[in-house]
Amino acid sequence: MSKKNAFYAQSGGVTAVINASACGVIETARKHRNKISNVYAGRHGIIGALTEDMIDTNRETAATIAALRHTPGGAFGSARYKLKGLEENRAQYERLIDVFRAHDIAYFFYNGGNDSMDTAHKVSQISKRMGYPVSCLGIPKTVDNDLPITDTCPGFGSVAKYVAVSTREAALDVLSMAKTSTKVFILEVMGRHAGWIAAAGGLAGSKPADAPHIILFPEIPFNKTAFLKRVKACVEKYDYCVIVVSEGASYKDGKFLAEAGTRDAFGHAQLGGVAPVVANMVREALGYKYHYAVADYLQRSARHIASAVDVKQAYAVGKAAVEFALAGKTAVMPVIKRVSDKPYRWKIAEAPLSRIANKEKMVPRRYISKDGFGITEAARRYLAPLIKGEDYPPFINGLPKYVTLKGLPVKKRLNDKFVV
Amino acid sequence: MSKKNAFYAQSGGVTAVINASACGVIETARKHRNKISNVYAGRHGIIGALTEDMIDTNRETAATIAALRHTPGGAFGSARYKLKGLEENRAQYERLIDVFRAHDIAYFFYNGGNDSMDTAHKVSQISKRMGYPVSCLGIPKTVDNDLPITDTCPGFGSVAKYVAVSTREAALDVLSMAKTSTKVFILEVMGRHAGWIAAAGGLAGSKPADAPHIILFPEIPFNKTAFLKRVKACVEKYDYCVIVVSEGASYKDGKFLAEAGTRDAFGHAQLGGVAPVVANMVREALGYKYHYAVADYLQRSARHIASAVDVKQAYAVGKAAVEFALAGKTAVMPVIKRVSDKPYRWKIAEAPLSRIANKEKMVPRRYISKDGFGITEAARRYLAPLIKGEDYPPFINGLPKYVTLKGLPVKKRLNDKFVV
Repeated sequence: MSKKNAFYAQSGGVTAVINASACGVIETARKHRNKISNVYAGRHGIIGALTEDMIDTNRETAATIAALRHTPGGAFGSARYKLKGLEENRAQYERLIDVFRAHDIAYFFYNGGNDSMDTAHKVSQISKRMGYPVSCLGIPKTVDNDLPITDTCPGFGSVAKYVAVSTREAALDVLSMAKTSTKVFILEVMGRHAGWIAAAGGLAGSKPADAPHIILFPEIPFNKTAFLKRVKACVEKYDYCVIVVSEGASYKDGKFLAEAGTRDAFGHAQLGGVAPVVANMVREALGYKYHYAVADYLQRSARHIASAVDVKQAYAVGKAAVEFALAGKTAVMPVIKRVSDKPYRWKIAEAPLSRIANKEKMVPRRYISKDGFGITEAARRYLAPLIKGEDYPPFINGLPKYVTLKGLPVKKRLNDKFVV
Repeated sequence: MSKKNAFYAQSGGVTAVINASACGVIETARKHRNKISNVYAGRHGIIGALTEDMIDTNRETAATIAALRHTPGGAFGSARYKLKGLEENRAQYERLIDVFRAHDIAYFFYNGGNDSMDTAHKVSQISKRMGYPVSCLGIPKTVDNDLPITDTCPGFGSVAKYVAVSTREAALDVLSMAKTSTKVFILEVMGRHAGWIAAAGGLAGSKPADAPHIILFPEIPFNKTAFLKRVKACVEKYDYCVIVVSEGASYKDGKFLAEAGTRDAFGHAQLGGVAPVVANMVREALGYKYHYAVADYLQRSARHIASAVDVKQAYAVGKAAVEFALAGKTAVMPVIKRVSDKPYRWKIAEAPLSRIANKEKMVPRRYISKDGFGITEAARRYLAPLIKGEDYPPFINGLPKYVTLKGLPVKKRLNDKFVV
């Protein structure tokens, strides 16, 4: 096998550990210089390939690449850019293959979620048909934890840890003040249609008196009466009530709580997601003093409190993708396979991209308590290992030292401009 | 001097390190058992004294007291409860002295902000007049950093670190995505009328291209036109714009941005503080995709990312208060005195409560850049040392191990019930 180049791109919402996967890809590729000359990284994800705007990772030092392991965000730039079906979008797929051919790229590593796995799968198909077969490897990433087959998705463990730690900390604050001040605290978390992140909030406590007292899952249709009754009972019993609400929480008819809110004087839908909507319900029905937090990007970029297990797994899937490619595999994705809960053991396995693409894994009903407001022991067994271990970044002068790439471009070889 | 008891209470909004001050008080008192028999702690702050509901700290182990140093929130319960003027409220002050007298309490340690220093000052005065002189010591605490005389307020350094770290992390996230997604990110922080916490966000970057690109201070009247112009220039130049906004940001007429928002269909003032209001301005005027986070209690309870300097100072003021009391001082508060910026050196000094009470220290104009949107080098010199050092709590199974007190009550000695 002659020496070829590889292409790596980050896709979709970034995480605290997606760069750890990049680190796994590049460090592993560098160990196989006899087969992989260089890893070109797409600037702004797949857009970088389409516009022939690629970063030359060989120009980055070993220290810089190593530091990606502890740097959040997407160091090469990510993109929310979905290649559509082959038929509507043939030009884009062909362009990708043209760029790969021009730069002698034989390996395509796509680090993303469901959509990206669909793209990687299609690229693998079209590359064969165009007579320039490319090994296409998916690398899982999503804080939403909603990819099928893999036991967990790199990125999730760190958000889960952030949310569990923050819930525990904020609960201590609220409890201290409840006598004369805030009684209800609401933390809004991410997760889209899947309640995994909200579920992780449940790890903050273990007894019924512990916060969070209520979790609102997208998987459980919101019942306002039952919810308010629970808030009241909780404040009466424990003096305070901590609620973790998923941004995807919705009514039986599928309407998001966040959308169902009121409109302002100009007729705009109320801004601010679900936390203020829930807060408003509590205020109107019960009159309790409340506070709410919207963690937003803080949760998925909080590398300072990343899960050591998550960092390790993020690196491992990057490394495995390169190893799979070098073993001649294509259209597959490394997945995390759980071997045991206690002690927690896992290994890397593989799954065909066709089985990952465009599928979402929701929180199963057996992970949610009967009343719909909490997590079960089965959920704890699943979630607990994923937040284990701390992996602090280095600090200088009180701040984490994150790395910035030189980001030097690979010289273009195609003359035409491609507009995305 | 015969052996006496001490009373300690937490007051107002709690912090990540107020328990470190409690730890300083109790550990130091325990070193002087010949003078202080026991530290009684008010359950829910001063309310615990008024209702004779005090926690017997002698029943807590040394390990528990030591663990207060790394436990956020107010372990004894705090209260937003202000004793008013002596004349309107004589009964309450007299009740306090009655309880102190009944329990042989000769030392009163009040851990709080401006209001609490006022209370401690008044208690010192009335106790003399009532013929039962109590040594009244203030212990500074406020995330708002707005107490006069002291160089900084314990609690602030840790919020400052949280905000600087979170801003740096979220900025990396936004920058990765800006090409195809979110271009403007807004982080709402606390601080009431003082912009210290917002200013600390400025530590996240050091060059003009670095986030945060805009800080909105309560000290600078909000100018919508100038603000939007700056957001636009920033997105055009750097592809993204990160804004840190203080909850106290307001217009020239003193009206809070958060209040000036629109009303919902029911005529309620829009919920959600200042971040969604700012976000809405950006959307309407410029149309950029935005996200916002409201850190709320997460910022002031985030013991996991506390500043080591802050923890040390919080402990030191607790310790010094006991030492001052034993030296016969009253109506004073230990303050932090800065000796030098580089290397950062500080010592404990003292200030009379009368000079602290009911005064607020704002961010001086020379700490804010000419355009009003950033911090100056002088501000950096002041702020940078305060976030230095990490002081991680112990973790078990991926979560910080925070302590809960037994909280056993001191036996009541007064028969009457006092209603607060």
